[in-house]
Amino acid sequence: MFHYELHYWPTIQGRGEFVRLALEYAGAPYLDVARGDVANGGGEAALLKSLTRENLHTPPFAPPYLKTVDLTIGQTANILLYIGHHHALAPADEAGWLWTHQLQLTIADFVGEVHDTHHPIGAGLYYEDQRSEAARRAREFRSERTPRFFRYFERCIECNPSDSGLLVGDAVTYADLSLFQIIEGMRYAFPRLMKRTESGYPKLVALHDRIAREPRIAAYLASKRRIAFNEEGIFRHYAELDPAEPDSG
Amino acid sequence: MFHYELHYWPTIQGRGEFVRLALEYAGAPYLDVARGDVANGGGEAALLKSLTRENLHTPPFAPPYLKTVDLTIGQTANILLYIGHHHALAPADEAGWLWTHQLQLTIADFVGEVHDTHHPIGAGLYYEDQRSEAARRAREFRSERTPRFFRYFERCIECNPSDSGLLVGDAVTYADLSLFQIIEGMRYAFPRLMKRTESGYPKLVALHDRIAREPRIAAYLASKRRIAFNEEGIFRHYAELDPAEPDSG
Repeated sequence: MFHYELHYWPTIQGRGEFVRLALEYAGAPYLDVARGDVANGGGEAALLKSLTRENLHTPPFAPPYLKTVDLTIGQTANILLYIGHHHALAPADEAGWLWTHQLQLTIADFVGEVHDTHHPIGAGLYYEDQRSEAARRAREFRSERTPRFFRYFERCIECNPSDSGLLVGDAVTYADLSLFQIIEGMRYAFPRLMKRTESGYPKLVALHDRIAREPRIAAYLASKRRIAFNEEGIFRHYAELDPAEPDSG
Repeated sequence: MFHYELHYWPTIQGRGEFVRLALEYAGAPYLDVARGDVANGGGEAALLKSLTRENLHTPPFAPPYLKTVDLTIGQTANILLYIGHHHALAPADEAGWLWTHQLQLTIADFVGEVHDTHHPIGAGLYYEDQRSEAARRAREFRSERTPRFFRYFERCIECNPSDSGLLVGDAVTYADLSLFQIIEGMRYAFPRLMKRTESGYPKLVALHDRIAREPRIAAYLASKRRIAFNEEGIFRHYAELDPAEPDSG
């Protein structure tokens, strides 16, 4: 018996992965609908069918969305806000849950910028049709945007009065799980950049390592439920976007 | 006596405008810090100074952020979530406030895409240094993205079981105010596109007109507090990005 149905593309981590990580860490049973058996009503066709249902009062704009017993919730950060409230993956007090959500929205901004390194002109076009623009955008991303976001998240861990090495208080929140995924994804997509620069963000790296050791996360990462990174998702490795040499001024 | 301090750039509507509209509609007194008198601790320098304060436990990544008596809240959609809870600008029940926030996050996605029509390569570069990329991205935006988002919002108004002409239930939410701002901004930035296509979204246009007539909004729009659109904000009018002819397939 599943309390949750996750609706997301079946062959990529993508934005759905932030939800998967939260559900896995919470130990909340969920059905990953589009990865299920077609015979049992699963598969990508089931996802597409549910997306275009006309009788839904709260239609999602795009996957991922989460179906609970009585709600259909879209937008990754909104889904995490719900999971945070219901599975103690964020503080219960207003100041705490707002701050956790604020961090998640900034992570979402970074994810959008990662996506646009390979799709600066439009999501509807192939990477191959926007390669020169992607090269320019990725350069800006490597030299300006990544350091700005990473310095910020490093500072947030430092600012945490609990001094727990986590983003918020002294217990893991969905924002920590998402930040773990950011580091994982960046190491896949921009391995040379990360090798050159990640030692400058020791608290980020330590948070990543701590999350990777959390028993339920470690079990998830080792399972078949964790889809491998690939060039259809958000974090894509294109060697030409991650040159060996640092970007000069 | 102000309950709120809004911290945002003083010369643009930008993302701060979504917060201004919510505070204005709620009738909540606020100080627009960077637009205040330098002699009284206002002005852009005050904004920049507060951004880099080292002793804040919840540092914002960027403006806008809202200071309440005891919180500093960043990320536009997060600020609106707070205002929605405290000023009845969203339903109080979980299903209702989650749906309102989901809509706001989709509006935020659209705002990000509007921004990237003139800054497809990077926010740190001038428009003049990314004009050819902007032309390509804006074409994709006009022909694919705008219709997709507008059809979606039109459908959401239709799906509302209250049949109120609003997005959620039968009372104005911050999402309605933000959607009003989207139509305002698009008419400024893409007047030819809007003239050709907006009649295809009658519920969107009707919602816009209704919000414009709300007494507090009408008073705000007529006041000096409403900054005019300009080419420093999110919605910029560059004639070359809004051609007279429809985009052919």
